[in-house]
Amino acid sequence: MKNTKEIEHRFNEPDREAVYRAIKLRRDMRHFKTDPVPPEILERLLLAFHQAPNVGLMQPWRIIRITENDIRNKISVIVEEERKKTAKALNERQKEFLQLKVEGILDCGELLIVALADDREKHIFGRRTLPDMDLASVACAIQNMWLAARAEGLGLGWVSLFDPDVLSELLEIPEGGEPVAILCLGHVEAFYSAPMLEEKNWVKGMPLEKIMFENKWQKT
Amino acid sequence: MKNTKEIEHRFNEPDREAVYRAIKLRRDMRHFKTDPVPPEILERLLLAFHQAPNVGLMQPWRIIRITENDIRNKISVIVEEERKKTAKALNERQKEFLQLKVEGILDCGELLIVALADDREKHIFGRRTLPDMDLASVACAIQNMWLAARAEGLGLGWVSLFDPDVLSELLEIPEGGEPVAILCLGHVEAFYSAPMLEEKNWVKGMPLEKIMFENKWQKT
Repeated sequence: MKNTKEIEHRFNEPDREAVYRAIKLRRDMRHFKTDPVPPEILERLLLAFHQAPNVGLMQPWRIIRITENDIRNKISVIVEEERKKTAKALNERQKEFLQLKVEGILDCGELLIVALADDREKHIFGRRTLPDMDLASVACAIQNMWLAARAEGLGLGWVSLFDPDVLSELLEIPEGGEPVAILCLGHVEAFYSAPMLEEKNWVKGMPLEKIMFENKWQKT
Repeated sequence: MKNTKEIEHRFNEPDREAVYRAIKLRRDMRHFKTDPVPPEILERLLLAFHQAPNVGLMQPWRIIRITENDIRNKISVIVEEERKKTAKALNERQKEFLQLKVEGILDCGELLIVALADDREKHIFGRRTLPDMDLASVACAIQNMWLAARAEGLGLGWVSLFDPDVLSELLEIPEGGEPVAILCLGHVEAFYSAPMLEEKNWVKGMPLEKIMFENKWQKT
């Protein structure tokens, strides 16, 4: 039998549904309107980001908010260079790839660069055998922001098409730090009804059953 | 002026608050009750996981659900071994570390191992310069599950204290695959009111201001 405390832990049905709805309707957005993001909403999204779980409580994340148009333009050029290189590396899908919109850097209301902090070696808790858990923490933080943005009616896109060394140089990210995300955040005309790469027939997702095993890995 | 469509994108206030509440109250749990997780709730949490953003829609994640007690016990031993090694590596904080509860593997209602799939090299989109974006996708999926679990009143803990090679051998994870999380999921007596590592004075978190820069990295 459940005790009172436990029932209290659970959100009521409309609140549970709201959480599931944010998860379901969140999209990796590439199409934005240029309207600015209200500062109080940005503040809430940054707090949501900062409340993420993080290995050994090391808070490995740093955010660089881009407010200068000149820097925004330079970031756009860096991504465009990598887009071309990715296209080449994709060989027979090159042409198809080049028709996809992969970022909204010049349109979105807010442009945020997320980087791993320098000076992470001293953090051993939970990272002795899996040092990349710092990146995992950063991803959890971005997912928090993504879901909160969806609830606010704002779109967010995580762009990873860039050379981290070139971006580090532009933003003066020190040795040991590493940019891992260019986040486009802003108003959108409409959210994609399915992931854009599915809508554009780039790829079709697998159903849940395909990724579930029991007790050991099964050959698929 | 905002158009109707845009207003429709935004969740109403109680629903927005529910999303922010899940983000705020989610904890990395180590203390569990042994009661089983109802199957219909587990199913919803797995779907939430599977709805996460993922680079190039590659769905790099696999989940191994542990239902055999013998395997659960062996996983517990693997984590205990790494706990001791981590303690040693922590030098002067060794004793303090050993007093922390770092996992609830033998108590939690559900034990799930999350792994990166093998055969990931062919996925280039968004990973040419940042191959670890697959891990980032997996972390987003775990964060989805974490928040949904909190809304359901269930605790989840991400344990990364293990040797991935030893765990791979136990679970027959093939070459190229990699376990990245032991997830303890289950009922809890109470959620920590602050991160457990703060409550236990292991570390104190930084405020948001400390991680925010503008236009370029600033020395802190």
